[in-house]
This record gives sequence, structure tokens and C-alpha cells, in this order.
Amino acid sequence: MALLEASKSWQGSAPGSVNPDLASERQTASFCVERLTALLDGGAEQTRIRRAVVDAIESDPVFSRENQYFQTQNERYEAAVRKAVHLQKKMHEMGWTENGPEYKYIYRALSGDVAFLLHRVFMRSISVLGSDKQIAKWIPLATQHKLIGSYAQTELGHVGRSATHTVVFAQLYIHGKCYGIHPFIVQIRSLQDHSLCPGITAGDIGPKMNFEHIDNGYLLLRNVRVPRENMLSKFCEVRPDGTYVRQGSQKINYFTMTTVRISLISDEVLTPLMKACTIAIRYSVVRRQSKLKPGEQEAKILDYQTQQEKLLPQLAAAYAFYFTNDYLQELFNRGYREIQRKNFDMLPELHALSSGFKAVITQHCTAGVEICLRACGGHGYSLLSGLPSLYTKILASCIYEGENTILLLQTARFLIKCFMAASAGQPVPPSVTYLAAVKHGKCPAKNKLDFLSPDIYIEAYQHVAVRLTSNTAAKLQDLIQSGVKKHDAWNQCTVQLVQAAKAHCHYIAVKNFAETVEKLETKAGIQKIMKHLCDLFALHGIFSNTGAFLHDGYTSAAQMDMVTASYLDLLAVIRKDAVPLVDAFDFTDKSLNSALGSYDGHVYQRLYEWAQRSPTNQMSPAYERYLKPLLHNTLSKL
Amino acid sequence: MALLEASKSWQGSAPGSVNPDLASERQTASFCVERLTALLDGGAEQTRIRRAVVDAIESDPVFSRENQYFQTQNERYEAAVRKAVHLQKKMHEMGWTENGPEYKYIYRALSGDVAFLLHRVFMRSISVLGSDKQIAKWIPLATQHKLIGSYAQTELGHVGRSATHTVVFAQLYIHGKCYGIHPFIVQIRSLQDHSLCPGITAGDIGPKMNFEHIDNGYLLLRNVRVPRENMLSKFCEVRPDGTYVRQGSQKINYFTMTTVRISLISDEVLTPLMKACTIAIRYSVVRRQSKLKPGEQEAKILDYQTQQEKLLPQLAAAYAFYFTNDYLQELFNRGYREIQRKNFDMLPELHALSSGFKAVITQHCTAGVEICLRACGGHGYSLLSGLPSLYTKILASCIYEGENTILLLQTARFLIKCFMAASAGQPVPPSVTYLAAVKHGKCPAKNKLDFLSPDIYIEAYQHVAVRLTSNTAAKLQDLIQSGVKKHDAWNQCTVQLVQAAKAHCHYIAVKNFAETVEKLETKAGIQKIMKHLCDLFALHGIFSNTGAFLHDGYTSAAQMDMVTASYLDLLAVIRKDAVPLVDAFDFTDKSLNSALGSYDGHVYQRLYEWAQRSPTNQMSPAYERYLKPLLHNTLSKL
Repeated sequence: MALLEASKSWQGSAPGSVNPDLASERQTASFCVERLTALLDGGAEQTRIRRAVVDAIESDPVFSRENQYFQTQNERYEAAVRKAVHLQKKMHEMGWTENGPEYKYIYRALSGDVAFLLHRVFMRSISVLGSDKQIAKWIPLATQHKLIGSYAQTELGHVGRSATHTVVFAQLYIHGKCYGIHPFIVQIRSLQDHSLCPGITAGDIGPKMNFEHIDNGYLLLRNVRVPRENMLSKFCEVRPDGTYVRQGSQKINYFTMTTVRISLISDEVLTPLMKACTIAIRYSVVRRQSKLKPGEQEAKILDYQTQQEKLLPQLAAAYAFYFTNDYLQELFNRGYREIQRKNFDMLPELHALSSGFKAVITQHCTAGVEICLRACGGHGYSLLSGLPSLYTKILASCIYEGENTILLLQTARFLIKCFMAASAGQPVPPSVTYLAAVKHGKCPAKNKLDFLSPDIYIEAYQHVAVRLTSNTAAKLQDLIQSGVKKHDAWNQCTVQLVQAAKAHCHYIAVKNFAETVEKLETKAGIQKIMKHLCDLFALHGIFSNTGAFLHDGYTSAAQMDMVTASYLDLLAVIRKDAVPLVDAFDFTDKSLNSALGSYDGHVYQRLYEWAQRSPTNQMSPAYERYLKPLLHNTLSKL
Repeated sequence: MALLEASKSWQGSAPGSVNPDLASERQTASFCVERLTALLDGGAEQTRIRRAVVDAIESDPVFSRENQYFQTQNERYEAAVRKAVHLQKKMHEMGWTENGPEYKYIYRALSGDVAFLLHRVFMRSISVLGSDKQIAKWIPLATQHKLIGSYAQTELGHVGRSATHTVVFAQLYIHGKCYGIHPFIVQIRSLQDHSLCPGITAGDIGPKMNFEHIDNGYLLLRNVRVPRENMLSKFCEVRPDGTYVRQGSQKINYFTMTTVRISLISDEVLTPLMKACTIAIRYSVVRRQSKLKPGEQEAKILDYQTQQEKLLPQLAAAYAFYFTNDYLQELFNRGYREIQRKNFDMLPELHALSSGFKAVITQHCTAGVEICLRACGGHGYSLLSGLPSLYTKILASCIYEGENTILLLQTARFLIKCFMAASAGQPVPPSVTYLAAVKHGKCPAKNKLDFLSPDIYIEAYQHVAVRLTSNTAAKLQDLIQSGVKKHDAWNQCTVQLVQAAKAHCHYIAVKNFAETVEKLETKAGIQKIMKHLCDLFALHGIFSNTGAFLHDGYTSAAQMDMVTASYLDLLAVIRKDAVPLVDAFDFTDKSLNSALGSYDGHVYQRLYEWAQRSPTNQMSPAYERYLKPLLHNTLSKL
């Protein structure tokens, strides 16, 4: 029935025109959208390359996602395989190579809708963990698609229907002694006819909440012999005589996961949130409902404080975590260079940060996409909005590559260890030196404007992170001293340990955002709006978690009221730039694939036209078969 | 790969046996499961009737849901129509009538997987809002399925592909004057050949996140004449001369929504959460991962505090809201009797409570199902777990029949009005009299056990609800007195008004749970475990929202630490009865339709067997078409 009301507004619209309700939002931008896009891309030249890649992909009909929302799992899988195969051809045609500047934009341009993703993880495992000889043997085979690789570890399997080879992480036993988890290359299907190799049972795990384009599988191995030289052996090796030799930390075997965790943040987590924000915010200035002021026309729903409070914090989080990702990438690159030199010193910090942030960012962004979906009401629930598939896709990121709670507990273990070390005056990695400097002061803010000062809120976040870590460390010690066994004591502290790990990551994210904003000094218009977003991100975190800040009196109730006031004020400020801020993400309509979120804002027209294409609007046999006999009362006698 | 590890445990199991890890959980129940089931059903006789209905439905192959997870939207729609038509026959065969004791169990037995749900809303609209004459004309036609009814208001339309008639809520104009929204019966399709009537444009809105079995539609009316006698006229009438006559409140036109909101809580919201808890908790005692104690076998994941902290509060919430639903039903029945007598006094309170609780319960339960899904890791993400379809179904309940934020603001408007009235010494409805009794004391708890006293936590909840309402009322007044226009002032308070409305509902839910437990005096074993759940529900609410309780110092930091300690202690206590507590919900395996959650706990066997049936394990053309040429390097020359 929304269509009924709205039909007036679009039936007169000229093709190519922009809905005036959306157009007006762009006329009042406080900053240059194109310049912000370039900043996000890392320079105008990068923006140019990215757009060229997107354009080449989107103009090729093989890569079309037009009918995606009407496809079955099998159809989506086949389309994804077709695209993956066509991509090789396309790259050749375009002169794109795996080391070229275009490569990193391909996946975004395809919206991830392509098969053989695990093939990349397969290759990465070999590159990171394989010896030079192994790399020389396998990487060319994989690059030329003479095999299709996969990755097999736990839970949602990865071997599915396509793979011929996989890296299996399994226990290494030598002469009956277990040496722990190691990576092995295992061939699972014939390269000739794709039949399963002897001893292999494998298949697809069936329908999932999304990822229909990916064939996740199960794998059973019975009496399968893997040649010794197929154990990836850059860091660990078994000599012909059965001697086990290790170079450096055994934890290096988990390093593929560390690299995957960091690399997924951008493509699999931030992109869905950024798209969801784009769709929901554009829709919220086109959709009008109820009157805000008596006698006026119905208001844009983004003018309601509650709608702002749903969407704008998600927008701020998208920017915040975008910059967190930059921070993690840089840290990772540094760490990786060291590891290549067999220096493993950064490994614990890298592992703790990648685990914690993988969990925090996926959790935050998943909640954010869900909020965007719900903020679009019934239309958000339609697949045609694009939001359900973004949600079901991002939800998986909370589960794969390490379940979030387990990851947070790994971060917490690192925090407790560092806290103990710092308390004993020992040196700790840079990201946790703050744990040593426990301050017992009070928040110095005197009025609501003070809470727009990064110094004030960064210190508040730091205080909470230190308090949660030190309190939990104390609880742990008390339990152990009272006679509880160490593992039981740890288990009894895990709910609070998770809180500490989250607080640590949140603190770093806020601090990093503020530092990023500070460095933008010359680009005035952009710095100002980024500062607003940083403030909003920080204050939203406090507003949503007031207890943590109030608990020990660091922040008083009066100060919390100031936080609330400043936070609500910011919503109204950022609301004015909401559309330009999502425009800067620079997603094409094809990439959003959303009837609600396209650049021109012709929401109702698209919804109506797209619905016509749905198979549900073709004549269903249900009428002739069931409804007609029912209505004509000619059903077999009741 | 989980299959690989787990394969040992099930391959030896005899058919009909129960996984020992699940069996052992049942041997130590602290209460009688069958007796709790009877309590939930409202007596052992009700349990017997319910089981007979479930048995009759589940043993009929037409109602099978076996292949549901592999079906397309069209297939699910057709199955739902087939079931709806077959249901008429079944009811006749079984001697079930719409007024019989079996009727209310049919929908649960079908797991809602049936068409024509809106037909019931159509009938309810006419029963509630129609004149005696209209009821006499339309209800028999609808009961005998001589027409298929629907309901058309906003957003997710309801007219789809099946309906021949609908109740449309539209503006009533007489001689150019608008009298607001009124309900009209409109025929939209021919009863003869199902073609659309003149002036009607209608169709299906296309794919959704779930509800494939329901054909939600759009509807446009152009120059459609509706006869005067088709306006539902129990409370409002247009005389032949154009005179408008109203009896009682105009708000009565929204009353269908009030009744739908209350009736959906049980079937559409509580049932999914109860099922999700059943699945996740059973799975969590079968699934083992990592060692809790060195040297022992891997631990059941429910033995981890973090897993308990995810699932057990959801279980407590399921029970809490089950009893809230009883409270609302009773209130509604009382109110409805009054309305039938044209006494509308209870309408505002009924509207406020049904709106607020619809929002709070759907939100809480949706989050709960999502937590259950994620708590099962990768297996939860498989459709075969049953959890994704529960989630996508319950998510819709946050949107339909009133968007939750809008509903909470309606509750808040009622609260503010009542708070003002109460402050001025005027009488207010029973559920809000507490607003008059603002107390400025402190929480009297002295140790963690005091927080297991309902008096202590009920008063804390009450205090927060009063504080949030009175503070927001004060802010609203301040703004208006400082010259802000009333509607702007209201908008600037809405984020806080939503908080107040939630606090009000949460307070009532806690209080009602405690009062329900108190009345269970004679049934000792059950009362004790219900008391634990009530405590957990209350303390989880405080633990998750500490700021609200700490803010004005009503609860001190030391007391909050006691809350945390008591809360964490309770998890370990309730964990022991977790499986019996979900067993008491008494869902059959067919009803759960979950590879993870069945009564016998043979999780991995079922996952494996069900995956075999997936169409994705039939030979895909993708190999011959794409993979083979790729691997054989015979693709058209790159």
C-alpha cells in the first residue's frame, strides 16, 4: 500500500532525473564528496583505477547480478563458477595481473559474487607457510588454474564441489607422538574427471543462510596417504628419517588465519556495512511518514531523532573501522616483513589485535547492517532492497575464521599476560603500554562541549579498558589464591574477560580515529565532518554502555547527562551531511543492487518494476490446482 | 571437518538410542519435566489435546516439512496453499471446529507453514469492527472459503496472489471532508476466474528474507467504487444521506491491530525463541570443543561460562515472556469484553501495553534467536539447523503490525500523559499507578544473596522506569518552556522516550514473572527452578544495562558487583537443568525440523544424512560446462 501513496511521486519523473528529496540533500554538503572519496581510496589516482575496474566488470554482462535475488542455490553456484572462469579471461583482456594496481579492486567490483574464494586462501596458505620449493611447485599450478584449491579446518567446511586440492590442517604424528596441528596439501579429486580420490568422502553441506555462491563442503579422510613433501614446511619440517625440525614459533601455523582475518575486514565486513548505510540513508530521505509539524507535508523519516539514532552511529562506525583497518593493515605489513625474516616478536600482538578486532568489527558491523535493514521497515525485509543478503552475508563473518567469543578470549589472554608483565615493570608491546599507567582520577569534563574533546573521551575509554582488565586480573588471582584450579578460575572469569577485550579494542579504535582526524589538518571541510563522526563514534559508545563509565565514578551522573546531550546534538549536525557521507563511499547502483538505495532515489518505481520480474508474478499452478476448486466449492467432498 | 572428528561417536549408535551426552543431562533434572509442560499448557488435559493435534498433523504426509530447506519461494507458496486447503479437509475428518479446544494448537502444529494467514486477520477485522449485519453476511462466506480474505494497510502489503477480498484501511471523505482512517471490504479478484477486478492493480512483492510461503502483495486502486455498506460499521457509520455517526472512540479502528499484536506474540515470537533455545541448548551438550581441564576429554560447550551467558538468559526470557503473554491475554480478554459493551475505558492502557510489549518482546526474542544461531557456530548457519529460518521469520515480527520504534513511542506518550496526571493527583490506569509513587531511596541490598530477593530487584526496575519517565517529562517541559515548539520538543526527546517505554515494559515483565512464581507455591520442584529463571531474567537485565541502575546512585558500584556475582552464579545453577527446561517446551523433532536439535542428539549423523538430500549434491552442470574446460586447459583461448 506504500506504493499506492507513493505512486504519484514517481509516475511523473523523467528518466535520468534524481528524486528532488534526494537531490536537495546533496546541495548542502559541507565538504567535497569527491575529495573524501579520494581520501578513502588513498589518492585520486587510486579512485580512477578503482572506477575503471568497476566499470569494466559492470559493463560485462557475464558479471551481471540482475536476477540474483530470484536464483536458487544451484543457480547461484553455477553463476559464481561461470564468473570465476570468465574472470581469468577478463583479466587477460584487460591486462590486469595479480601484482597490478587493479587487482585489489576486482573483488569489490564483483561484490564478492564469484567462486573459488578458497582458492585464494589455499594459495595464501602455501605462500605463507610453504617452503621455497613448495611455493615454486604449487603456486604456478594454482595461478594457472591447473587445480582448484581449498582450505579445510573446522566447522563450515570449505571443500565443496569444485575443489581438486585442499590445505588440510591436521594433527601431525611421528612414531606415535603428536606434534600438534600442521598444514598438508591433499589432493581430493581427480584432475581428469573430477571423481573423488580413493579414501576421500566429500560433498556439499547443503543450503545455508547465504553464500549460495560458495560450495562449502564436508570432508572425511580414510587411510589417505599424504606424501611427506606435501606438509607445508617453511617453518616446520619432517626429515626423511622422521626427525621433526621447527624454526621459530609453532603458532606460525595459525598465521594464515591471522592474515585472512585481517584481509576479510575490508571486503567482507566493512563493504556490507557501508553499502547498508548507503541504502538505508538514501531511502530515509526519500521515504516520508507522518507529520513532524502539524500542517506541513509528511516528514522525511531521517528527520526523526530515533531514525538518526539508528543510522548515524552506524555511519560513524563504518568510517571508524575503515580507519582501524588501515591501522591493522599497516601493523600487519610490518609484522609480516619481520616474520619473513624469521623474527616472530610481533606475532603475539598481531594475533591479539587481529583476533580482537575481527570479533569486534564483525559484531559491530553485523549489528549495524541489521539496524539498517530494520530501519527501512517492511521494504528492508524485501530481498530487492539488497539488505537481507548483506545481512546474511556479514552474519557469517561472526562465525568463520574463528568464532568471535573464542577470539576475544585470545585477546583477553594476551591482555592479562601483558597487564601482569606491565605491573611487574617488564616491557610490553606498544598497543598495551597504557595498561601500566593506571590512573585513579576523575573525568575532568565540565560541560557538554568538553565531551567533544578527543583527549577527554580517549582517556575515558582508556580508563575503562584498564579497569576491566585489572579488575578481572584481580578476580582471577583471588580465585586461584582461594584454591580454585587455574582452568576453572579462568572459566569463571570469561564473561568479564570478553568485556575487557572489547573495551581494549574499542579504546584503540577511538584513539586511532581521533589520530587520523588530527592528521587531516590541511583538508578543512573534510577534517571537520570527520571530527564530527569521530565524536559521534566515541560518544555513541559511551551512551550505549554508560555503566562501564559510571561504575567507579570516573564519570559522574551529571557528566553522563552531558554526554547524552552532546551525543544527541551531534545527530542533528551529522544528519545534514548524511547523504554526501554515503555518496563518498562511491558505490555504483549495480554494486548496491538495491531498489531502495540507488543514486537517483526512485525507490518506488524500482520496487514496482523489479517485483514484476519476480517468478512469483508468473501464473502459479496453485490457482488451478487448489484455489479454484476451493472457491468453486468443487474440492473432493469435505 | 567437524564431521571427521565426530564420525566416530555416531557410527556405532543404535537406532532409537539417545546420545549419551544428552541422556545424562536428563537424569539429573531437579524437577518433573512433564509437570512443567502441563503448567505451560494450562493443565495436563490441554497437553493431551495439544499432543493429539500435533500427532494428527505430523502423521499426515501432506503437512510434511521435510524438504522445506531445499524449496524455492514458488514451491513454498504452493505447498502452503496445498496445506491450507488440505487443512479444511483434515479439520472436518478430525471433527475439529473453530470454537473447539483443538483449534488453537493447529497453527503451532503446522509451524505456521500454511497459507491464508491474512484470511484470519480479515475475519478478525470483520468480527471486531463489523456490524452484526456485516458479520452475518461475511463471516460464513469466509469460514466456508467462498472467498479468500486479506488485509491491506501499509508497507509489506498483504494482498498477494491468493486473495479475492481484502479489508482496506483508507481515509474516509464525505463531501470533501476527511474523517480519518476507516476499514472497507473491497473485492479485488473475480470469484469466477481469479482475474483482477476493474481498477485494481495487484501482485506479489517478490522475494523476501523469509515468509516465502506467504504471498505479500502490493495493491493500487484507481476509481474503485466501494459500496457504502462495505465500510465496517460497528463503531462508525455513514448514513445514506452522508451523515457520519460515531459510537465511542475513533481509535477503535486500530483495534484489529491491538488484537493481532497480542495474538502474534505467542505463535510468531515466543515459539521461535523457544525452538531456538531447544536447538542451541541440546546442541551445546552434544558438541564438545577444547579441553576445560587439562588431560580430560574435550568439554561440552555448555560448560563454558561464555556459552551459558549466551544461551541461559534467552531461556529465562522465553519463560518470562511466556508469562507476560498470559498477563496480556488476560488483560485483553477483560478489555475486549468491555469494548463489546461499548465501554472504551481500558483502550488506552491496552493499546499502550500491547504496543510496548509487542516491540519489547519481538526485539528481545529476535536478538535471542540470533544469539542461539551464532552460539551454534558454523552449524547454526546451515539451514539444516533450523535456526536461520527461525531467525528470518522472527525478524519480520519487529517490522510488521507496527514498526517497533513507533510502537514504543506510543507507549511513551501514554506514560508521559499518565505521569503528568499522576503528578497532579489524578487517577491513572492500574499498570502505571507506580509512576505516582516516586521514591528517592537507595537500593537496600547488602550482599549478593539479597539480589535474589524479588522485592529488591523489582524495586530497582521500578525506580529506573520512574526515573526515565520523569526525567524525560522534565526535559520535554523545559524545552517547551524555553520556547521550542511542542512537536520539535517531542522529537528531541524521542530517543529517551523509547528508553522510558522499554524500562516500563521490562519492569512489568519482571514483576509479573515474580508474581507468577509466587503463585506456584504447591509445586515445589517447579517453583524452585522457575524462581532461578526469574532471578536470572531480572539480573541479566541489570547486568546488561548497568548504567540505568547506577546513574543516580540508586545502586552503588559495590552493589553492581554483587549483581554480577549473583548473576554469574545463577548461570552455573541453571546450566544443570538447561536440557530439562527446553524439553519441557515439548517440541517434536518434526516441529523443530533441525539437524542439531532433535531429542536424541544424533547431530552429526543427521547433518550428514540431510546434506546428502540437498540438490547441491546432485551432479551440477557447472563441472562439464566450466570446471572441466578450465582444468583441462581447453577453455576458448585466453
